[in-house]
Amino acid sequence: MYVGEVDMRIILVGYGIVGKGVTTILANKYLEKNTNCRFNPKIVAIADIDGAVINSQGFSSEKLEAFKQKGYPVSADAEFGHKSMSALEVIESVEAEVIVEVTPVNIKTAEPALSHITKAFKSGKHVVTTNKGPLALAMPALTELAEHNNVFLRFSGTVGGGTPMLEFAKRCLVGDKILRLQGILNGTTNYILSEMGQNNMSFQDALTNAQKMGYAEREPTMDIDGFDTACKIVILSNWIMGKKITLRDVDITGIRDVTLEMLKDSVKRNSTIKLIGTVDNNKASVKPVEISWSDPLCVSGVLNAITFRTEYAADQTLIGRGAGGIETASAVLRDLLDIRHKLASKLLS
Amino acid sequence: MYVGEVDMRIILVGYGIVGKGVTTILANKYLEKNTNCRFNPKIVAIADIDGAVINSQGFSSEKLEAFKQKGYPVSADAEFGHKSMSALEVIESVEAEVIVEVTPVNIKTAEPALSHITKAFKSGKHVVTTNKGPLALAMPALTELAEHNNVFLRFSGTVGGGTPMLEFAKRCLVGDKILRLQGILNGTTNYILSEMGQNNMSFQDALTNAQKMGYAEREPTMDIDGFDTACKIVILSNWIMGKKITLRDVDITGIRDVTLEMLKDSVKRNSTIKLIGTVDNNKASVKPVEISWSDPLCVSGVLNAITFRTEYAADQTLIGRGAGGIETASAVLRDLLDIRHKLASKLLS
Repeated sequence: MYVGEVDMRIILVGYGIVGKGVTTILANKYLEKNTNCRFNPKIVAIADIDGAVINSQGFSSEKLEAFKQKGYPVSADAEFGHKSMSALEVIESVEAEVIVEVTPVNIKTAEPALSHITKAFKSGKHVVTTNKGPLALAMPALTELAEHNNVFLRFSGTVGGGTPMLEFAKRCLVGDKILRLQGILNGTTNYILSEMGQNNMSFQDALTNAQKMGYAEREPTMDIDGFDTACKIVILSNWIMGKKITLRDVDITGIRDVTLEMLKDSVKRNSTIKLIGTVDNNKASVKPVEISWSDPLCVSGVLNAITFRTEYAADQTLIGRGAGGIETASAVLRDLLDIRHKLASKLLS
Repeated sequence: MYVGEVDMRIILVGYGIVGKGVTTILANKYLEKNTNCRFNPKIVAIADIDGAVINSQGFSSEKLEAFKQKGYPVSADAEFGHKSMSALEVIESVEAEVIVEVTPVNIKTAEPALSHITKAFKSGKHVVTTNKGPLALAMPALTELAEHNNVFLRFSGTVGGGTPMLEFAKRCLVGDKILRLQGILNGTTNYILSEMGQNNMSFQDALTNAQKMGYAEREPTMDIDGFDTACKIVILSNWIMGKKITLRDVDITGIRDVTLEMLKDSVKRNSTIKLIGTVDNNKASVKPVEISWSDPLCVSGVLNAITFRTEYAADQTLIGRGAGGIETASAVLRDLLDIRHKLASKLLS
């Protein structure tokens, strides 16, 4: 399938922990040695809320490292900075093959990510995103729009962080049929429930603890009310189970009403309570569920886990860290390589 | 990548629990609906120790079902039976694209599977096998021989049964680097150790129990002395870590010397003892290792598990049933589809 080295010019939109992880991984030079499909990524622009830096030749590893070290916005760079240039302008005007969209999640309007992605599609650019918002609110429409514009949309990092849950289901269970999936897909709630159960702590104390540790946001509703898990369930449902749903189709209950007493009671049955997202033939739901300690899905702390029930190969459980800048950035890398591979196949056919 | 429907004629060599599972799955008609790559498998021969049945048109679902229902050797079939025809003769003389080799494992000589596989290669036939023997003893040579003859060798079912451990590492961690792998890869020893620890049972009693349950052979050395795990470690080492080793390169200790006292002692540290195979940069080993209950790798009963430590995405653990006829047959199906896909790509290029 080798068709010679092809440059892949990348516009990075969003420059938080995941964005910085992406620059770290791409600046790393080992890629050529590690993969069969040659891949020459070049970050030609980074757009953040304050402006952008642009270099059509691609930034050097050293420059990417320097951006990370400096405390101020990238757009302040004397040589390449474009203060107050918007991400949309960058996406439209800078030549590139792929947009990597890693701005903060917004599940009310999906903005600004939704506009970034649709603008990218309309400019004929592929999109890799780790942003659940646009997918949770409009996944069926977005996948259609990508097809219509003959570009790829990839989003491995939206579910499981660096743990390749979406790829596993798509690539490793070929020929089998997934009858149901169940997942612990949110590290914050899993940490809180683990703390409550293991350290005899109230929900409120465990939440405060999680906030101190940096595992929970000051405004924690996205996690503890189940919306983050529900977004992931929407993505899994569309991509893996072929069910074209959006966030409003998921039956959602968070963990606010899980009491210490309920957890203690479950211990009598060698069980505990976890926030579990489920998709089967009939429904998609997120709710606290009692689960046996011996169930491989029953992971503690900030781990994520998913179990696919298959027709032939029985239950398959995949466990890993569900967040983290570098971990999630590794999912972006996988998506970029997948697009590279797909483009190479297209050239052949 | 669609290049029209292509027949895949299959010779099934070995007709035990996995072989029968393969006929069940292939007789099932849903394949066309479930996969993008069209695939029209036809079993044109089944060879067992007693002879063979051959039908160049491919056996119907009904006929395959009838073979399974009948108690006597397939070669006794009045219409298609060839008593005393050897598997080697069948492989050489019957026209087919793929040999599915699922005869019993022999790790001393790797026979008869080794002869079946080399004969298939020399007749220009691809091979899918679930037989660890030939791979444990001669994997580097076999992969070279396959390449030399321009055919594919696939063996997903040799590790993890139906759990796609090999595919996961190859397909889902692209761009990342696997630094180390550790696995609980043998259900029999895991059942015995779980019984000892959970039910306060001696090694001998737990072994007898496992034999009664059908989880252990009457001659249990392959499992309890670590050879089965070591075979899988050889395959993982060659295929995933790129280290060309054979069985003699693995440092092997079984579970015969694990005492109830050792297990009880480990409990004090919220741990237990498992038979763990490891491959890292320096060595390949199989030995009883103390492991924390909270480690996702720590599964009980007949489950198998593997943890890949990666550079970027941290630890990734995959858990599933490590044996079973239908489960392992699902791995054969995945391999057949992979070969089908590879052949389609070849036609395109």
